[in-house]
Amino acid sequence: MSELDIDCPLVARVLEEFLRVELGRFGFSRGVVGLSGGVDSTVSTFLAARALGAENVTAVLMPYSGSSPASEADAMAVVEELGINYLQIEITPQIDAYFERFPDANRLRRANKMARERMTILYDQSAALGALVIGTSNKTEALLGYTTLWGDMACAVNPLGDLYKTQLRQLAGHLGVPRQIIEKPPSADLWPGQTDEGELGFTYEDVDQVLYRLVDLRLRPEEMVAEGFPEEFVRRVWDMVRQSQYKRRLPLVAKLSRRSLDRDFRYPRDWEA
Amino acid sequence: MSELDIDCPLVARVLEEFLRVELGRFGFSRGVVGLSGGVDSTVSTFLAARALGAENVTAVLMPYSGSSPASEADAMAVVEELGINYLQIEITPQIDAYFERFPDANRLRRANKMARERMTILYDQSAALGALVIGTSNKTEALLGYTTLWGDMACAVNPLGDLYKTQLRQLAGHLGVPRQIIEKPPSADLWPGQTDEGELGFTYEDVDQVLYRLVDLRLRPEEMVAEGFPEEFVRRVWDMVRQSQYKRRLPLVAKLSRRSLDRDFRYPRDWEA
Repeated sequence: MSELDIDCPLVARVLEEFLRVELGRFGFSRGVVGLSGGVDSTVSTFLAARALGAENVTAVLMPYSGSSPASEADAMAVVEELGINYLQIEITPQIDAYFERFPDANRLRRANKMARERMTILYDQSAALGALVIGTSNKTEALLGYTTLWGDMACAVNPLGDLYKTQLRQLAGHLGVPRQIIEKPPSADLWPGQTDEGELGFTYEDVDQVLYRLVDLRLRPEEMVAEGFPEEFVRRVWDMVRQSQYKRRLPLVAKLSRRSLDRDFRYPRDWEA
Repeated sequence: MSELDIDCPLVARVLEEFLRVELGRFGFSRGVVGLSGGVDSTVSTFLAARALGAENVTAVLMPYSGSSPASEADAMAVVEELGINYLQIEITPQIDAYFERFPDANRLRRANKMARERMTILYDQSAALGALVIGTSNKTEALLGYTTLWGDMACAVNPLGDLYKTQLRQLAGHLGVPRQIIEKPPSADLWPGQTDEGELGFTYEDVDQVLYRLVDLRLRPEEMVAEGFPEEFVRRVWDMVRQSQYKRRLPLVAKLSRRSLDRDFRYPRDWEA
């Protein structure tokens, strides 16, 4: 039993209710999800299908020419298991048309452009389908800034944003996500053999323990080192959290008036009028 | 003298200082701006050039094949007047590659996809140039929701977000923006002859009076009607503000833990550790 263990049936119920209620509040009953075949987007898709009914969920598969066929097979297995609608929309033509002009662009630039292209497609399809975009970012990657700003972080509602990766895996098991998807090494599938943990240099198990203590328990790095966590690791994680804060905020607006966007507009009481 | 009159020299000084200080806080001295040739992006570009020096500003012109050549000429006049760097990157290949598959997509879908494509390019160029994206959205359009979510609203820092359109025009005059740019009818340049005011069905002069009273003075619609404002107009504006609130917020995250993103993480005091 670890502090990161969650009550899966309860969490599933809360998140399904969250999706139903929040979509309903905006006047929607349908959702679209970008489905990569990874565990995060699969869990979002499972929750959406349970909350809204399979007929009201559209998974959008958006492979690039370099994407792994295995990821696509995993995504299609989810579509079939749930009986949801799906669309496959290649991003290759748009991405290649852009980078033809910038052939020296590095992997990171390409990866971010792809994540943002996928966002633009999800929003376009949500408009076409009268649906809202359901997010797939978890708390671990959002805290580490291991995400693309205005890319995978952008959505209308996100059922996963308060679940650490290790918690999300527990929930995946409870929801009946195929073992193959839960057990494969997490990857953004940006180049062959890429894995999150290889790129980050630590495991999700380890970093979630650190993040939970720093963020949820509000321990100071010194306190964690006294508890026996390696200092260098704790400092590195804390730096990643601090340096990526801008990805978790709205754009900074220069304040000039007494009522400025995202500062003092709007308090809940303002809505009465 | 109107309540919406601003002290232009003071506002210009505040906004230039805002850009210098906030870019510096992130460790940057360079900015990129998407320059359409309209008054908003022109004012942002003027402020950036004054704040950072012309050599540290890159304007990115991103025409679509249907964009007006007159807009481009206006944008180029700004580039030449300020002596800043510029890049011209057509969005036509990427946009057409996508909509080839969805030929029935309406104007709104196309317009939003274009606005988001431009955002992805600005962010990519900011990465290439070691610069931050300087925003160009004003308070009027943000309050009305006359914007694209994760499109023109997305940026790192926005010097214009607390200025109503009519205030921005005053500032433009003070900064020496070419008369032609200040006086032409505002347009997102999405189709020939499109103007903001034609599409919205009211003028910026009129709507800014209403927004200022509703938002800055916090008058209720009833109070404004009693003051003599037409009820239907006030209600319509207020409905636009209410219905577009989601465009001014981050994605809604389901809260599960005691410390959730964008709810209770992070208070300023958290940064001490």
